[in-house]
Amino acid sequence: MSDLTATIHDFGRRARAASRALRRCSSEQKNQGLLAMADRLVALQDEILAANAQDVEKAKADGLNAAMIDRLTLNPKRIAAMADGIRQVAALPDPVGEKIKDWTRPNGLNIQKVRVPIGVVGIIYESRPNVTADAAVLCTKTGNATILRGGRESINSNVAIAKALSLGCADAGLPADAVLLIPVVDREAVKVLCEMDQFLDCIVPRGGKGLIETVVSHARMPVIKHYDGICIMTIDREADLAMAESIVVNAKVQRPGVCNAIETVLVHADIADRFFATTGQTLLQKGVQLRCDERALAGLKPINANLVVPAQPEDWRTEFLDLILAVRVVDNVDEAIEHTETYGSHHSDGIVTANAETAEHYLTEVDSATVYWNASTRFTDGGEFGFGAEIGISTDKLHARGPMALEELTTYKYVLRGTGQIRG
Amino acid sequence: MSDLTATIHDFGRRARAASRALRRCSSEQKNQGLLAMADRLVALQDEILAANAQDVEKAKADGLNAAMIDRLTLNPKRIAAMADGIRQVAALPDPVGEKIKDWTRPNGLNIQKVRVPIGVVGIIYESRPNVTADAAVLCTKTGNATILRGGRESINSNVAIAKALSLGCADAGLPADAVLLIPVVDREAVKVLCEMDQFLDCIVPRGGKGLIETVVSHARMPVIKHYDGICIMTIDREADLAMAESIVVNAKVQRPGVCNAIETVLVHADIADRFFATTGQTLLQKGVQLRCDERALAGLKPINANLVVPAQPEDWRTEFLDLILAVRVVDNVDEAIEHTETYGSHHSDGIVTANAETAEHYLTEVDSATVYWNASTRFTDGGEFGFGAEIGISTDKLHARGPMALEELTTYKYVLRGTGQIRG
Repeated sequence: MSDLTATIHDFGRRARAASRALRRCSSEQKNQGLLAMADRLVALQDEILAANAQDVEKAKADGLNAAMIDRLTLNPKRIAAMADGIRQVAALPDPVGEKIKDWTRPNGLNIQKVRVPIGVVGIIYESRPNVTADAAVLCTKTGNATILRGGRESINSNVAIAKALSLGCADAGLPADAVLLIPVVDREAVKVLCEMDQFLDCIVPRGGKGLIETVVSHARMPVIKHYDGICIMTIDREADLAMAESIVVNAKVQRPGVCNAIETVLVHADIADRFFATTGQTLLQKGVQLRCDERALAGLKPINANLVVPAQPEDWRTEFLDLILAVRVVDNVDEAIEHTETYGSHHSDGIVTANAETAEHYLTEVDSATVYWNASTRFTDGGEFGFGAEIGISTDKLHARGPMALEELTTYKYVLRGTGQIRG
Repeated sequence: MSDLTATIHDFGRRARAASRALRRCSSEQKNQGLLAMADRLVALQDEILAANAQDVEKAKADGLNAAMIDRLTLNPKRIAAMADGIRQVAALPDPVGEKIKDWTRPNGLNIQKVRVPIGVVGIIYESRPNVTADAAVLCTKTGNATILRGGRESINSNVAIAKALSLGCADAGLPADAVLLIPVVDREAVKVLCEMDQFLDCIVPRGGKGLIETVVSHARMPVIKHYDGICIMTIDREADLAMAESIVVNAKVQRPGVCNAIETVLVHADIADRFFATTGQTLLQKGVQLRCDERALAGLKPINANLVVPAQPEDWRTEFLDLILAVRVVDNVDEAIEHTETYGSHHSDGIVTANAETAEHYLTEVDSATVYWNASTRFTDGGEFGFGAEIGISTDKLHARGPMALEELTTYKYVLRGTGQIRG
C-alpha cells in the first residue's frame, strides 16, 4: 500500500468511527454542533481569510480568469453568509429517526422501516471553497460523517474552513472527525477515495463533467451524479403565447449559467410564426443567440440576421450555460417528446399548453427528474421546492433524483421486534 | 466497436424503446402481459424442456456436481411453478403511479413526487434457469424493460424461457422487447453491459461474489448488490434461554445454505455456561460444528470433542452456508455490537434479551439492513416481510436495502403543474 493510500485509508477509518458516534446523537446535539460550527467559522475568520489570500495569490499567478478568481475569493461578508447558511440548516427538521413504515405480521413480528444516516459520505468538489461548509453541514445535520476532497485551487481555504468546522463539532461534543478534509492535492487521491468502499458509503461529485466521469469510472460505491442540464421547453400550438414568452425568457435569460436554465425550445409549427414575432423578438432584444433548424431559421432570420444562425448537430446536445438557445419547429407534441427524450439530459423539461390532455400526455411520456406544465424550469432547486437546503440536483434515477436535500442524505433500515418468532 | 459490442448495444436500444412503451401501459395491461407470459411458458413446455435437456447433458459431460445439476434441471412441475409464480405477481398491487408526495408552493406551483418505472434493468445471474422468469416478470410488472444475462450452463434453457416470455408480452400487446436475453456466453458480454449506461439504468447481479465483484468493478450505472450474509446473533445475559435456543437453532439449522442464516453467535459471559449446556448441546446433537474462541472452547469442548474446534481468524468473516457456527463469549453487549459492526456483513443481525433498554441500544447501534430483537434472522425475506415477491436482498445502503421487491424496482419523478409561474 502506498503512503497516499495509507493516509487516505486512515481518514476513512476515522470517518467510519465518527459516523458511529454521530448516529447516536440526538437532533438537538447535532444542531448544537451546527451552531458551534457557524460560530467557529466567524471566530476563525482571520485565519480563513489569510489562507484564502494564499489561494487567490496563486490563482492570479497561474493566470486564472476573473470569474474563477471571484468564485475563489472569500471576504467577511461571504464567511458570514456561510455561517448564516449553517444556522438555517440547524433550524430545519431532522429526517433521521422517521418511521417510514410500521406493520405487524400475522405471527406478531413487528417490522419498522426507519430512516437512518447513510454513514460516511464523500464529497469531491471543485473551485468554490464555500462548498466545504455547505456540503459538510448537510451531512452532519443528517448524522453522516463527511470526507471532503476539494479543488487544488482552494486547498488552503478548504483546510482552514474544515478545521473550523471540526473544532465546532468538538465544541459541541460531536466527534471532531465528523468533518474531514483530504489535504492532498495529488489527483491520485480521488482514485483512492473511489476505491475505498469499506469506509465510504457513497460519493457525491460536485463539479464539471470531467470530474464526474473520473469518479464514475473508478467508484466502487454508489455515486450520486449531477450531470448537465440540457433542459428543453416545448411550446404547444395551444400555448398561451404571453405565458410562453414569460416562461421561455425566464428559463433562458434570468440566469443562463445554471443547470436548470433551458437550452432548447421546440415550437409547434402552427404557432411558430406568432411565437417568433413575440418571444423570438424579445429573446433577440435581450441578446440571445438563436441556433435554429431550417424552419425556425426561415422565421427568425428576418428579425435579426446577426443573432440568428443555423443550428449544428451538436447544438441539440449542448449545455450552453450562456445566452444561446437552440430552436426547432416540430409538427406535433410527440415529435417534441421524441426530441426531448433523445437529446435532453432528463433534468428539467416542460411544456406550455392550455390543453390539459396534451400536458398530461407530455408529463407521462417525458422521463426526466422534473417535468413542468406551464412553469419555468428554473424551479428545479431545493430551495424553490421548499426543502430548505440542497446538496445538488441529481440526474441519477436511483436513490436521489432531482433536487437532493436532507432526506436524500439518509437511508433506511428495517427494525424487527419479536417475542421469539422462528421461521417454519 | 466490436461485433459483440454492436450486438449488445442493439439489445440496449431495443430495450430502451420497449421501456418507453411499457411506461405507457396501465397496470391492467401489464398484468395481462404477465398472465400471457405464464400461459406461454406452459404452452411452450416441450420446447423449454428440450432446450433444458441439452444444458443438463452438457453439464453432466462437464462433470458438474449433483446439486448443480439439480438446480439446472427443469421438469413440468418446475415450469408449472414458474408460471404460478408469474400469476401471483400479476395479482400483486402495482406500485407505479403512486403519488408519494403532493404539495403546493406559496406561488401556486403544485409539485407531485410520483412513482415511475426505473427504465431498463439489467439482471446478470448464474445457474438456475427459473431466475430468467422470476426476475423478468417483476421488472415487467413495474413497467421496466429487462435485459437478462444468464449463466453459461443454462444458456439453452434461458433462451427458450425468454422466448416464451417475449411471446407472452406480444400476445398481450406489450412490446416483445420488454424481456430480452443476451444469447452470448462470452464473458466479455458482461463488461459491455456494465459500460452501457446510455441504455441500462441499473444492474442487479445475482450470483456469487466473483460475479458481483466483476459487475461492481466495471459498472458505470448503479448496481444493486446482494453480497454475503454474515449474520450474527447476540445472546444477552438477560436472554430467555429457551427462546435463545429456539431462535439460534432456527437461524442456523433450518436452512443453513441461505444468506439470512446465522454464521456466528456471541454469548454474554454471565450466561455462557447455561447457554452451552442447552443450546450448545442441541446444536451439537444436530451435527453443527462449533468454531470457538478460547472461552467458548473451554465451555463446549467437554460436550463434544469432535464437533468443537478452535476458531481461526477468518472464521469470524466467513459465510459458511453449512452446519458450521462460530461462537464467541463477550463480556457485554457493546463488545457484541463492536464485533457485529466489525465482522458482520450488515445483512441481518439480532439480539435475544428480555431487557428492552439493552435491545433498543443494540437496534440503534447495529447498522445492518435488518436488525432483530427476539426473533430469527431467517425472516429477512420479501415473502416473510409480506411483500409478495422478492428480487433479492440488498446489502447496499442506497436505493434498496434489505428485501427488495416491487417498490424497489421503481423510482420517482417530480411533476410540476403551474399557471405560468416564473422565478423571481
